[in-house]
Amino acid sequence: MANQVSEPQKIFRIGMLGFGTVGAGAAKLILESVPPLKDKTGIELRIHKVAVKDLHKPRLLGLPKSAFTTNAHEIVNDPQVDIVVEVIGGLEPAKALVLQALKHGKAVVTANKALLATHGKELFEAAVAHHTSIGFEASVCGGVPVIGAIRDGLVGNRIESILGILNGTTNYILTRMIEGRTSYAQGLLEAQSHGYAESDPTMDVNGTDAAQKLVLLSDLGFHSTFSFSDVHVEGIAGLDLADVTYAAQLGYTMKLLAIAKRRNPGADPDEVPGGLEMRVHPTLIPFNHPLANVRDVNNAVLVKGDATGEVMFYGRGAGMLPTGSAIVADILDAARGSARQTFTKLQFFQNPRADLPVIHIEKVRSRFYVRFNVLDKPGVMGKLATVLGSHGVSIASVIQKEPQESGNVPIVMLTHNTIEERFRVALEEIKGLEFVKQSCAFYRVED
Amino acid sequence: MANQVSEPQKIFRIGMLGFGTVGAGAAKLILESVPPLKDKTGIELRIHKVAVKDLHKPRLLGLPKSAFTTNAHEIVNDPQVDIVVEVIGGLEPAKALVLQALKHGKAVVTANKALLATHGKELFEAAVAHHTSIGFEASVCGGVPVIGAIRDGLVGNRIESILGILNGTTNYILTRMIEGRTSYAQGLLEAQSHGYAESDPTMDVNGTDAAQKLVLLSDLGFHSTFSFSDVHVEGIAGLDLADVTYAAQLGYTMKLLAIAKRRNPGADPDEVPGGLEMRVHPTLIPFNHPLANVRDVNNAVLVKGDATGEVMFYGRGAGMLPTGSAIVADILDAARGSARQTFTKLQFFQNPRADLPVIHIEKVRSRFYVRFNVLDKPGVMGKLATVLGSHGVSIASVIQKEPQESGNVPIVMLTHNTIEERFRVALEEIKGLEFVKQSCAFYRVED
Repeated sequence: MANQVSEPQKIFRIGMLGFGTVGAGAAKLILESVPPLKDKTGIELRIHKVAVKDLHKPRLLGLPKSAFTTNAHEIVNDPQVDIVVEVIGGLEPAKALVLQALKHGKAVVTANKALLATHGKELFEAAVAHHTSIGFEASVCGGVPVIGAIRDGLVGNRIESILGILNGTTNYILTRMIEGRTSYAQGLLEAQSHGYAESDPTMDVNGTDAAQKLVLLSDLGFHSTFSFSDVHVEGIAGLDLADVTYAAQLGYTMKLLAIAKRRNPGADPDEVPGGLEMRVHPTLIPFNHPLANVRDVNNAVLVKGDATGEVMFYGRGAGMLPTGSAIVADILDAARGSARQTFTKLQFFQNPRADLPVIHIEKVRSRFYVRFNVLDKPGVMGKLATVLGSHGVSIASVIQKEPQESGNVPIVMLTHNTIEERFRVALEEIKGLEFVKQSCAFYRVED
Repeated sequence: MANQVSEPQKIFRIGMLGFGTVGAGAAKLILESVPPLKDKTGIELRIHKVAVKDLHKPRLLGLPKSAFTTNAHEIVNDPQVDIVVEVIGGLEPAKALVLQALKHGKAVVTANKALLATHGKELFEAAVAHHTSIGFEASVCGGVPVIGAIRDGLVGNRIESILGILNGTTNYILTRMIEGRTSYAQGLLEAQSHGYAESDPTMDVNGTDAAQKLVLLSDLGFHSTFSFSDVHVEGIAGLDLADVTYAAQLGYTMKLLAIAKRRNPGADPDEVPGGLEMRVHPTLIPFNHPLANVRDVNNAVLVKGDATGEVMFYGRGAGMLPTGSAIVADILDAARGSARQTFTKLQFFQNPRADLPVIHIEKVRSRFYVRFNVLDKPGVMGKLATVLGSHGVSIASVIQKEPQESGNVPIVMLTHNTIEERFRVALEEIKGLEFVKQSCAFYRVED
């Protein structure tokens, strides 16, 4: 190893784009971190400039008035700024500003999963081209350092799968449904009353937020650049408490899982080709699954590497301070030069996609939970089993409940492993049977 | 950020000290990692030389005969070697060899917790002085990248506490006792029959191994250099199944916890001074504690940061491949230059100890589980409570069991929070009472 070290840069000037809840939280933590970080690392952070929408809104934290500007371009073009922290959110103007900062060789730190899940390829390539970096630890699992762990800590592994509970809002709602026996609507109201859900919770409950985060984890874990459109996404909106209850009777809990799973070519008995499954959907997992006890707003990521086996990272996935903690870690990573090395010496994000095509959901293999509502007639169960069997779907277990007031009978089944398209064809046929009432509900199972 | 990057070194030559189970596992993983790592990172690893005890033992992995030597000094002095992987274990000659390698500016990667827990200060200082680094991810929790997570990922936090299940052997034995109702001796036999325990399991079961790992985690989390002698250590040898059973009846499970906990000056109602608690002992934790479900040979570390809150890292703590995975990660960290930056730009391991003195176990505050065996006489319970109360120890809950064949009655108590020295004085007084038979057992509780 070369023995010379050049005198390291000691003062790093930060330009902040945005000063909302996340931005102000990050700034607070940065300012509080200045003395201990200087002690620990010799590096001094300074918040040099902050771009805000409204200069007249009262600002805290003892920053001088002159530090604030409404012109974000002033920050990304300022030669004094070393590190740009982007906490505006959304696609534009965030994308244009980040690109401009990268072009000037500034390191970028961002919590903007939507931006990276949509334009990651272009932005990562720009960072490499300009010998700088994008830190995005804050974009997944708040203060849990899962990005760094997958990127660096597990680098000696071939990652087989990444399973995550990546959205705190939906995990809170599901916890309330499972433990409090509340309806979905009531669970959502409680999440909102605790401040765990936005007034418009669409991006959380429809799975978008989790899918964006899965894209970022997959970029690192599988060394390519995926995008949001690669992910099959189903949310939890309108989930029926009955299905949560029946799942529990079968020994399973319901989680909104984000799943990226490698399938080796030639490994499938039905000759389904190899590639990467990428999906977000409500999922039944057995009570003893490592992710089953991740409750409330907590997040967790379970990574399976060929050498390490299953490794799990767990903690609170959001909030002003956890997110701020991740931003500070990324700032330090940039300041000490490691982030740049990740992007330049390490050739992440640069591999071709061809060797790991995304597997369409219809070709995904899993077990299924399915609930039928049928008329209370003899021979119904046999008919269902026959149709499923004729499509190669076999049944692992069944619950038949007492008839409801409507006269309908819920029948709940867990199937054995099958390819989804087969299951769906069988389901369509079953829906056409005269004794089947209302629409069926089905969910995938991860054992 | 400066825009120039010098042409990075591409080929890194590894010298291996030792080729036992861990060494051969690491070598296998390094060799398997060469093509994917070259793809991912542009860095090419080569195993240049391997020091072994016996040249005539058959060696695998297709390394040329000329790569092997019995002279370890040849490796640490070889100018071609960039990175030395030390997997000999033990204090000497490991220490002398590591020091020599550092003096030549070579990066060192080691799984040797005993070495670092004993001579960490000297070795870390030598690494800094020679502008190089020591990677020790493999020394704690196998392939779970907890070292990197605490060092880098949580750098923006003030760490409040680190709680770990750091020894897989003892966790397996405890799991068997709790779930299989085996005795300690039987649990140990099963661990040995599965290859989870050495034929001489002393270092595992007496807590030494966990304490060494706690030292390393504390060095990073609290930015100082601690040593094994700072840790109060009690193992699980001879643990009575009765205590595991009574604990369960009270809603607690028994784990060998490694605990490092900051106590702020002035925070204690009894004016116990501030500092750092460092201890390893069998501990009662409630069933819903995040560490309660860490079963079998798994390890987990629960870190509480002021910004992130509780963050947990979990996975298999040992084994040839998980350890190899951590060694590969550290080799890459060294090869891309990050490890050196950690040691030179980041001023870890260099802070004085004075601001965080280790708190003596007698001054530690916790709740206690205690089991007395007493004669079956009236008034006994009142006497026990009176003695405890006279020393300021109050009782939270009690189980009194039916008399045993011997005529003795086990009485189990959980106390409220107290300073240990008070509890111990009360215990001594109780042991002197004529109706108390046999020695008492007590364990600390973490809620």
